[in-house]
Amino acid sequence: MTRTLIKGGTVLSSTGTSVADVLVDGEKIAAVAAPGVFGDAERVIDATGKYVMPGGIDAHTHMEMPFGGTFSHDTFSTGTTAAAWGGTTTIIDFAVQAKGTTLQSTLDKWHEKADGNCAVDYGFHMIISDVNDTTLKEMESCIGAGVTSFKMFMAYPGVFYSTDGEILLAMQKARETGSTIMMHAENGIAIDQLAAQAFAAGKTEPVQHGLTRPPELEGEATHRAIQLAKVTGSPLYIVHLSAAQALAAVAEARNDGQNVFAETCPQYLYLSIEDMAKPGFEGSKYVASPPLREKKHQADLWRGLRTNDLSVVSTDHCPFCFEDQKVLGTDDFRAIPNGMPGVEHRMDLLHQGVVAGEITLERWVETCATTPARMFGLYPRKGVIAAGSDADIVIYDPAAKQTLSAETHHMNVDYSAYEGFELTGRVETVLSRGSVVVSADGFTGSTTHGRFLRRDLNQYLS
Amino acid sequence: MTRTLIKGGTVLSSTGTSVADVLVDGEKIAAVAAPGVFGDAERVIDATGKYVMPGGIDAHTHMEMPFGGTFSHDTFSTGTTAAAWGGTTTIIDFAVQAKGTTLQSTLDKWHEKADGNCAVDYGFHMIISDVNDTTLKEMESCIGAGVTSFKMFMAYPGVFYSTDGEILLAMQKARETGSTIMMHAENGIAIDQLAAQAFAAGKTEPVQHGLTRPPELEGEATHRAIQLAKVTGSPLYIVHLSAAQALAAVAEARNDGQNVFAETCPQYLYLSIEDMAKPGFEGSKYVASPPLREKKHQADLWRGLRTNDLSVVSTDHCPFCFEDQKVLGTDDFRAIPNGMPGVEHRMDLLHQGVVAGEITLERWVETCATTPARMFGLYPRKGVIAAGSDADIVIYDPAAKQTLSAETHHMNVDYSAYEGFELTGRVETVLSRGSVVVSADGFTGSTTHGRFLRRDLNQYLS
Amino acid sequence: MTRTLIKGGTVLSSTGTSVADVLVDGEKIAAVAAPGVFGDAERVIDATGKYVMPGGIDAHTHMEMPFGGTFSHDTFSTGTTAAAWGGTTTIIDFAVQAKGTTLQSTLDKWHEKADGNCAVDYGFHMIISDVNDTTLKEMESCIGAGVTSFKMFMAYPGVFYSTDGEILLAMQKARETGSTIMMHAENGIAIDQLAAQAFAAGKTEPVQHGLTRPPELEGEATHRAIQLAKVTGSPLYIVHLSAAQALAAVAEARNDGQNVFAETCPQYLYLSIEDMAKPGFEGSKYVASPPLREKKHQADLWRGLRTNDLSVVSTDHCPFCFEDQKVLGTDDFRAIPNGMPGVEHRMDLLHQGVVAGEITLERWVETCATTPARMFGLYPRKGVIAAGSDADIVIYDPAAKQTLSAETHHMNVDYSAYEGFELTGRVETVLSRGSVVVSADGFTGSTTHGRFLRRDLNQYLS
Amino acid sequence: MTRTLIKGGTVLSSTGTSVADVLVDGEKIAAVAAPGVFGDAERVIDATGKYVMPGGIDAHTHMEMPFGGTFSHDTFSTGTTAAAWGGTTTIIDFAVQAKGTTLQSTLDKWHEKADGNCAVDYGFHMIISDVNDTTLKEMESCIGAGVTSFKMFMAYPGVFYSTDGEILLAMQKARETGSTIMMHAENGIAIDQLAAQAFAAGKTEPVQHGLTRPPELEGEATHRAIQLAKVTGSPLYIVHLSAAQALAAVAEARNDGQNVFAETCPQYLYLSIEDMAKPGFEGSKYVASPPLREKKHQADLWRGLRTNDLSVVSTDHCPFCFEDQKVLGTDDFRAIPNGMPGVEHRMDLLHQGVVAGEITLERWVETCATTPARMFGLYPRKGVIAAGSDADIVIYDPAAKQTLSAETHHMNVDYSAYEGFELTGRVETVLSRGSVVVSADGFTGSTTHGRFLRRDLNQYLS
Repeated sequence: MTRTLIKGGTVLSSTGTSVADVLVDGEKIAAVAAPGVFGDAERVIDATGKYVMPGGIDAHTHMEMPFGGTFSHDTFSTGTTAAAWGGTTTIIDFAVQAKGTTLQSTLDKWHEKADGNCAVDYGFHMIISDVNDTTLKEMESCIGAGVTSFKMFMAYPGVFYSTDGEILLAMQKARETGSTIMMHAENGIAIDQLAAQAFAAGKTEPVQHGLTRPPELEGEATHRAIQLAKVTGSPLYIVHLSAAQALAAVAEARNDGQNVFAETCPQYLYLSIEDMAKPGFEGSKYVASPPLREKKHQADLWRGLRTNDLSVVSTDHCPFCFEDQKVLGTDDFRAIPNGMPGVEHRMDLLHQGVVAGEITLERWVETCATTPARMFGLYPRKGVIAAGSDADIVIYDPAAKQTLSAETHHMNVDYSAYEGFELTGRVETVLSRGSVVVSADGFTGSTTHGRFLRRDLNQYLS
Repeated sequence: MTRTLIKGGTVLSSTGTSVADVLVDGEKIAAVAAPGVFGDAERVIDATGKYVMPGGIDAHTHMEMPFGGTFSHDTFSTGTTAAAWGGTTTIIDFAVQAKGTTLQSTLDKWHEKADGNCAVDYGFHMIISDVNDTTLKEMESCIGAGVTSFKMFMAYPGVFYSTDGEILLAMQKARETGSTIMMHAENGIAIDQLAAQAFAAGKTEPVQHGLTRPPELEGEATHRAIQLAKVTGSPLYIVHLSAAQALAAVAEARNDGQNVFAETCPQYLYLSIEDMAKPGFEGSKYVASPPLREKKHQADLWRGLRTNDLSVVSTDHCPFCFEDQKVLGTDDFRAIPNGMPGVEHRMDLLHQGVVAGEITLERWVETCATTPARMFGLYPRKGVIAAGSDADIVIYDPAAKQTLSAETHHMNVDYSAYEGFELTGRVETVLSRGSVVVSADGFTGSTTHGRFLRRDLNQYLS
Repeated sequence: MTRTLIKGGTVLSSTGTSVADVLVDGEKIAAVAAPGVFGDAERVIDATGKYVMPGGIDAHTHMEMPFGGTFSHDTFSTGTTAAAWGGTTTIIDFAVQAKGTTLQSTLDKWHEKADGNCAVDYGFHMIISDVNDTTLKEMESCIGAGVTSFKMFMAYPGVFYSTDGEILLAMQKARETGSTIMMHAENGIAIDQLAAQAFAAGKTEPVQHGLTRPPELEGEATHRAIQLAKVTGSPLYIVHLSAAQALAAVAEARNDGQNVFAETCPQYLYLSIEDMAKPGFEGSKYVASPPLREKKHQADLWRGLRTNDLSVVSTDHCPFCFEDQKVLGTDDFRAIPNGMPGVEHRMDLLHQGVVAGEITLERWVETCATTPARMFGLYPRKGVIAAGSDADIVIYDPAAKQTLSAETHHMNVDYSAYEGFELTGRVETVLSRGSVVVSADGFTGSTTHGRFLRRDLNQYLS
Repeated sequence: MTRTLIKGGTVLSSTGTSVADVLVDGEKIAAVAAPGVFGDAERVIDATGKYVMPGGIDAHTHMEMPFGGTFSHDTFSTGTTAAAWGGTTTIIDFAVQAKGTTLQSTLDKWHEKADGNCAVDYGFHMIISDVNDTTLKEMESCIGAGVTSFKMFMAYPGVFYSTDGEILLAMQKARETGSTIMMHAENGIAIDQLAAQAFAAGKTEPVQHGLTRPPELEGEATHRAIQLAKVTGSPLYIVHLSAAQALAAVAEARNDGQNVFAETCPQYLYLSIEDMAKPGFEGSKYVASPPLREKKHQADLWRGLRTNDLSVVSTDHCPFCFEDQKVLGTDDFRAIPNGMPGVEHRMDLLHQGVVAGEITLERWVETCATTPARMFGLYPRKGVIAAGSDADIVIYDPAAKQTLSAETHHMNVDYSAYEGFELTGRVETVLSRGSVVVSADGFTGSTTHGRFLRRDLNQYLS
């Protein structure tokens, strides 16, 4: 089997940096060594002056997800290829239980979609839409099948919404099995009233999506989820946290030592409700839930990343084309497919946070790779440059410049939420399980390369 | 130079564990490799079933420190040897400025004491007792000399005490230089009144030391130090935090994203004011400042270690013999030398926290080695098992049993604060910069082996 | 018209005490005067050494309320007579909308029950069980009819429960009209799951009622109600707050200046979940919602009364006889009628808090009379001894002793929740609108005397 | 003795309003009666359409106070006359212990200054500058002499400053005697460093006074005082609270039920650090300590008045003339006499808060009259319109307009801090102990009328 030596780079970890050589043997990292310990190898990559870092892990993506009568526009194939371009070598996507179906059939269906169609490795979370005795029992077999986290919704009544009673039942099972409940925390019942009132009042434009989902109702639902988790003893992971109010609830619980965790997404760090208010129907490009917030929330979120009250950055990648999908909501903001593209740019956008002094290099690696690996039971297989780990490696040029654009991105969607953003830093080379998949030669991987990851339980529980 | 291969152990880091071989070449770790990558070496240590972990870093010791007319009873020689026995391969001791002297002469004096007399590597913090223009200017040269942290006291008026104005000046300099102010945070002015009142009322026994230093006055001083740090922009590190009230102040500041950090010590996790109330003069063995608290504080401190509001565990090792030193305070608790022995048992006592489920293995490594290294500018030279790092390595048997006792410990003090404690887990082999210093053969190191560590600035600042 | 002079008593108000004479002319207080200003009157009552205080206002009673197929056992006639005996001269009872009916018909029905059947004056709150366009519109006419506060339930799904969306709509109307939403804040959806699980597990005894309603779920619902009130701008009054967690949520909102208020009840101050665990079916006597809590909550509630985070003490008087009503739940704690008797003893039980040093005399008057009057739009007609106010006056002997018992109480229920409680202080004479209704001669009033009170809006709003 | 009937006015209290007649007999209120109960009196004042309210109590004034080599410019005679003009009928001024003198001699001296020289009644607090055994013992005799509150300073080292140890001692005595410690809470030790640095850097202008006293250092000292009060059990009253940070500390303590109280002053509600930055030396007019803050603090302070975390509004009246006193600091902001005039305008400025919707009428009366009376042991003699109380009565025209100006004010100072402020509402008639002292005829009182008030202990303690 081929041995590859990545020489002279600055190896990054969540605790610091050092110049070292990385020896890759087959799919694994064979050794991390002081420069020169290994004289040679079949293949040598010179990483001098570059970062050598663990491949990114995007713990929140939605490839070809059914939503509102359409599907998110990236397939596993196009989406994972775009991920690779952006230095993300693992995604964890969501299998979505339809009401009336089983978790097993759901999982089967998602395996069918993904297996053999991914450029990088992937795992699944399970979305529980239909809590009943069978579903609860199946949580156990899901865990056995490597799906150890279960997402529920406090929003989207009639679609994904679970009642507090249903959440309680699933949390009890999570406590029993050590698995983690992931929560979309918005008070959808109240929100739907506000949205209906706005529509009835003739307010139909995209920004209404944001105005009818006030941050207090994210804060409220987050607090509620935390209390339900406290009553049941369940681990809880708040997805796509966007509002200062929600962050405060998470911080309080974490300070009390409760097993509560949260992620935010690049869009909440860089974009705001002002984008949703752009002229015409332009704002629809930014419609996702929770909505983009007023700018003042951004500073709180960056602070949360520093204090570790926000532990993970994921993308909630869920792209819908402007031309033929977003337009479904031209006359009613409620019909705009909820979601934004982003899987390709997370690593770069967060590196920009390093450049801007918002977070340290260590936190970049930690929030984008190491912590998601530990949070979702993939460590040390993923998330670290270490002997024995999968050789998912990114060689990153911290000085390169790039401008984001739909013209140049690789996601299968007709717009960029970050059109024209000028960034410092860029992925140079990407290895997935030892294979170079992105390099100066472009994408050299294969969409049959990626393998399903059976995940262990959350490794942060106390 | 000799190459040593530590084979088959479970390598611990602050993020997780993996089975790997560690190749040591001279004083450094040459590589960490998957099992078998390195076939052989001059010397092989079989670590199968054992932990292979970075040597502990005790960031708070006082060897042969002058206090109240006497000296703490461990010399650098005996103290660092005891440290090695307990798996601690780096200490950071305190050079103590006497009023009217310069920082440089202080540093010279401490180098004279320590250089050539240490079994393991060591660094210095500087205690500032005399704030004036010269001292402030000298902070810069101290940093140049590798002493990057400065301790001040809000207690001990007339000895170490600095006024809030003096603290402010030093903090301004710390902000300017990026160095860190370490704070003994107790309101000594108020405490001395309470202590004088108790003595005047004929209350002379050791427990009065605790009763006259209420936890509110540690909380108060901690809050005050944090506000002064906020006004000046100085990094702040609270030493030997013992009280829930102080923890709350630290947690609030950290939640706000301020550069505030704190350590606690094993004695606050395991012992309580009840020990100070033992019959006769027995309680004097437990007299240190801040004092041991009521037991209920212990759960808060363990929680703080989990939440990272307490980032470091140090010992505040400052041993005074019972027979001829503690007795100075027989008739007046205020004359009991303040301090307890502990440098030898920190790693074991915290491993006991792992056994008891209070903290994870990762937090054990992090709070006892990785974080102190990062906090005090030693990473990645110290605090991690990684290529290029110093080969300060502990091979730890997690299943061994031991009982702590003055009969068997190696500290130069005639009592153990943990006499009879039964622990699971024990240091088996210790390497310091590549040399085996403790093994089944006993202490095989040399008290001339340890070298002074020039430290960089705190690596956690944001 | 008769003039009565109450001479020489210590007149109590929410701000202090003074010795003064009170001249009553007809139904009103004509003057409060320095001793001797009025030489004489047709009728003179000597109050020397006694308190002369405003009659109590119990803002939370349920007379002959339908619940679970039965009715609370006090009629307006028996209940208001018992109230008078206990120094309460105003009650505000709840008209209960049945689903499918209008607020107007509900109000008509309650007027029919109460009008001409009350010993003291009374008002109504309206319980909204069925939120729809008609109901929302009717809130306006209710206010016009003197019913200015609307109670909703986050518990009791299928009976009184409103969804967060329905609550939002009612709160919007409250904001618009300046009326107040009163909230039963328990997460009934989650609680019902816990209760069903307990029952399914064969746990049927009364204490299960408490164990399946954990305080976190009262805290959660309280927090949720507060956030919905914030989003809508609605005044909010939390009824029968029992848990420290709920108190914390209220305190935080009040500290932020939000129009949030709360009451507690004597049972939460004096009784605990231990009472629900009494042998046999005895615990059923203490089944109410929220349930009695662990004893440690009591100190928090008393503190809340001191800090005014708890502004009002009401009784939630809702008596069910042990012999033929509580027994409905012999085999299933869920079928035990929820409610406890108490309207007669509130003033005495809170005076006991004065005796015990928990609250001041001023807070006694304030929480039991003045504040409920202001909170529910009755001030200065009720709640104060002042010229022009209704002559609802209690002459209270602070030194008298009494023992509470079902043998001697006047409520129409076969047990006392406070059986055997020994209290200091006792009502001596009660005037309702100038008429002596209780005195040494016993009850000398009439159950046709009480009049309906059209209430104004909450007088505390900012 | 003359009887006066104030007819038809709207009588205000801290709990509400009602139309009533007030009968004054000699120095006392003989009765408050429904309109018409008293047909006639020797003198009748028609108050129809006006407020009839208790005279204001200004609990914080400094008449002819020695400061920095000069004296505040109002004598007791001019200052109390100005107070009367503004509807304030009681002041509590500060006797100032000079170091090396006794409290008794201090009190004697202040009596000498004030006795026979006041237009309205007055009391004294005692400023303790010199804590020693004699002083502590004398606190008891002060209480016997009706001086029941003791002010200490955490600022002004070398002048009024007390160490934390001295504060502790005084607080212990306060706990023992039930008296109240009033605290000037600013960290003067740290502030003096900042001020010296600014001056050394050539920054000499008035605004530096504000810039060198950051709000964090008021928050810090407030927190510290609260902790010392907690340790000792002493009641604590924070004077002239100006910063959000200090308010937060007070709110937290009050929420915990500690006996902690605070006042703010009109200047902090209406003026800001921008005033101190006015061109030339104009800013010196606004130099007081704590300094005026950034405008954003104002909203917090108004909220604090609503939530009762700020219980009292006083003026800290301490006028220095611009022309010959403020100019002492032309070249050094540190030499500007600290203090502002204000005793005349407190009632009007706070009424303006009612007009603006910041506080209710009830809170106006409460914070300016009723609460200071209760806080400082004067209730019900002062602070309320009630039978038996002193006839200190203000008839206030809520609709009148006025413009504040040094041209028209009655304080003996050559500028107004509120020059040109246009207000709604104005004092019409003022009675002090039954005598009309201000009316349409101007000041008709006498500066020998005012009497010394022996005060009881704080009536809010729990």
